[in-house]
Amino acid sequence: MQLLKDRIIKDGIVKDGDVLKVDSFLNHQIDVRLLRQIGKEFRRRFADCEINKILTIESSGIGIACIAAEEFDNIPVVFAKKNQTKNIAHDVHRGKVESFTHGKTYDVIVSKDFLGKCDKVLIIDDFLAKGNALVCLSEMVKNSGAELVGAGIVIEKGYQEGGKIIRDLGIRLESLAIIDSMNENEIIFR
Amino acid sequence: MQLLKDRIIKDGIVKDGDVLKVDSFLNHQIDVRLLRQIGKEFRRRFADCEINKILTIESSGIGIACIAAEEFDNIPVVFAKKNQTKNIAHDVHRGKVESFTHGKTYDVIVSKDFLGKCDKVLIIDDFLAKGNALVCLSEMVKNSGAELVGAGIVIEKGYQEGGKIIRDLGIRLESLAIIDSMNENEIIFR
Repeated sequence: MQLLKDRIIKDGIVKDGDVLKVDSFLNHQIDVRLLRQIGKEFRRRFADCEINKILTIESSGIGIACIAAEEFDNIPVVFAKKNQTKNIAHDVHRGKVESFTHGKTYDVIVSKDFLGKCDKVLIIDDFLAKGNALVCLSEMVKNSGAELVGAGIVIEKGYQEGGKIIRDLGIRLESLAIIDSMNENEIIFR
Repeated sequence: MQLLKDRIIKDGIVKDGDVLKVDSFLNHQIDVRLLRQIGKEFRRRFADCEINKILTIESSGIGIACIAAEEFDNIPVVFAKKNQTKNIAHDVHRGKVESFTHGKTYDVIVSKDFLGKCDKVLIIDDFLAKGNALVCLSEMVKNSGAELVGAGIVIEKGYQEGGKIIRDLGIRLESLAIIDSMNENEIIFR
């Protein structure tokens, strides 16, 4: 997706420790015009699929998923929560995600009321690096009895193992921008 | 907003401990059709205002804010983060929020890159109860030098103190559904 790659080149900032900051347009401040185009691109790539639910994980995936859901005929979005709150039912699907960004492990839950065998699920998230979050979400989908149709990722760090892990699991993965390498001076896309 | 009130009556569940569960359509599973109507209603109520940024707080506010932002001519959304991550610049506005839902206190941050004196800000969030999150966000806006135009809330618990606190601060508050009382058998709106 050239519009996205151009934006990453223009506004992305590469920092020490393999960090790509896109917080001016994607995951702190959000450019909803770009999100709309991202949603349209996900729809185009999964146009041949029957999908009736989008699953994402808080927080950065939520805006992307909500706008994409409108492109998929207003299907519901479910976002996995990273900590159990008082308001969530006990009847939940559970997983664990080790977050590269935050340097810790989260419990992740989705209510069984909102993920089950009638669902044909597209997972959407902002980043794919080591693949922890996506593997966790895909296991939750499979354990729920739902059908996992595929995963749509905005930015994949192609030089990390996540993409291979997901593809080796037989999951259809569509990443809108795959970074082959990056440093302070340049970002190279696949 | 009658559509919203009808939906709360239909699908909201009142639980012990003053909990209104709306997680089948608003803050765990999300009905994007409803979010679009909520966005249009916020725009209608703030139609006379000059607004160039929407500020919300993770996680439940993000989807609402992103879809509303499209109704406000695609202005950017900024969401306050509840924990500092490695990816966030040191140069941040800081606040603290005591969460009723989670039973703990969060540090809240917004990068100074995305909130400053050029911004005319509408705060959007899903719930207003005791007002902690909204007071925190409004202080961050004022401390940043930005102009706080108002706050748009989806569901206000009118029998709690948050609404009075915010209105007493002189902040224009538009709540789309104000609950005067609720129990397991009925929900009464103002």
